[in-house]
Amino acid sequence: MTQQVEGKRVAILATHGFEESELAVPKAKLQQQGIVVHVVSPEAKGIRAWAESDWGDTYGVDVALKDASEHDYHALVLPGGLFNPDALRLDEAALAFVRAFFQAGKPVAAICHAPWILINADVVSGRKLTSYPSVAQDLRNAGAEWVDQQVVVDNGLVTSRKPDDLDIFCHKLVEEIGEGRHAKHA
Amino acid sequence: MTQQVEGKRVAILATHGFEESELAVPKAKLQQQGIVVHVVSPEAKGIRAWAESDWGDTYGVDVALKDASEHDYHALVLPGGLFNPDALRLDEAALAFVRAFFQAGKPVAAICHAPWILINADVVSGRKLTSYPSVAQDLRNAGAEWVDQQVVVDNGLVTSRKPDDLDIFCHKLVEEIGEGRHAKHA
Repeated sequence: MTQQVEGKRVAILATHGFEESELAVPKAKLQQQGIVVHVVSPEAKGIRAWAESDWGDTYGVDVALKDASEHDYHALVLPGGLFNPDALRLDEAALAFVRAFFQAGKPVAAICHAPWILINADVVSGRKLTSYPSVAQDLRNAGAEWVDQQVVVDNGLVTSRKPDDLDIFCHKLVEEIGEGRHAKHA
Repeated sequence: MTQQVEGKRVAILATHGFEESELAVPKAKLQQQGIVVHVVSPEAKGIRAWAESDWGDTYGVDVALKDASEHDYHALVLPGGLFNPDALRLDEAALAFVRAFFQAGKPVAAICHAPWILINADVVSGRKLTSYPSVAQDLRNAGAEWVDQQVVVDNGLVTSRKPDDLDIFCHKLVEEIGEGRHAKHA
């Protein structure tokens, strides 16, 4: 049953080297729906974007990861980039934050290389998802069913492959936020 | 039985975004031993280094990947970086080139994030190795035994974690080249 999304709260977890459009576009699209969006990061002073082929602007962080709680949000967004998930998958606090959304049955949206974080959070086994193609073998080896589609929605987990997929990724994310909690994933 | 290494030939396979020291240091150390070193790449016009935290110099390519054959070399080196293995693991010609060294029982040395390429080449199952820590779970899920050591040598496969390990990585690589072919790996 679809609920109103206005006033709901979404965390975007990222660190240096996130792919700029994969944070900025979901943030803008969610805010257009009246959703409150917080950028959460272990780097509380700001995080530097990766803009396609080089470093981009520095983005503000709303909540330091050490002060963030899954209880304060209705859903989680994980942007890609290479440096960003490569660092977050080794950050135990980041993995615990991600895992809490799965345990609570709240929507999680991951795009591009972000599903590497889901591998280390140990939440992909038995799930159907997509990602940037280079991550496919790692996801299959972690027990996921990987498919090459613009977007995959599996029981609250929304995944896409790359910036070109952002429109449908954001559309499905808003739908999932409207549906609220799903059966517990983890 | 250790053989002379002088005059032997080694290929370094890399593309844009290779970690500069992980190509430049092995190249120099091997050349100091009288070994002939060729940089092989799908990007025949030159490849841009990643120098710790930003793009670095462009390096020349000696042999285009499409013209390269495992038969012409005694060993293979795979530098890390993030963009470099992320691209090569999706390049079927690169995977075939890598696989040929394993099938021939020739030494292969991979450092940092380069073992991602070995996952897609399907040559890590049952092997003992190391890598940059973020790649550890992907290697374990691919069937490898991952250990946190400066260097691991397993039947001709030499692996290290990061640029700090380059001295011992190169030392063990030269030893393996001196030993020549091993039991076939693949």
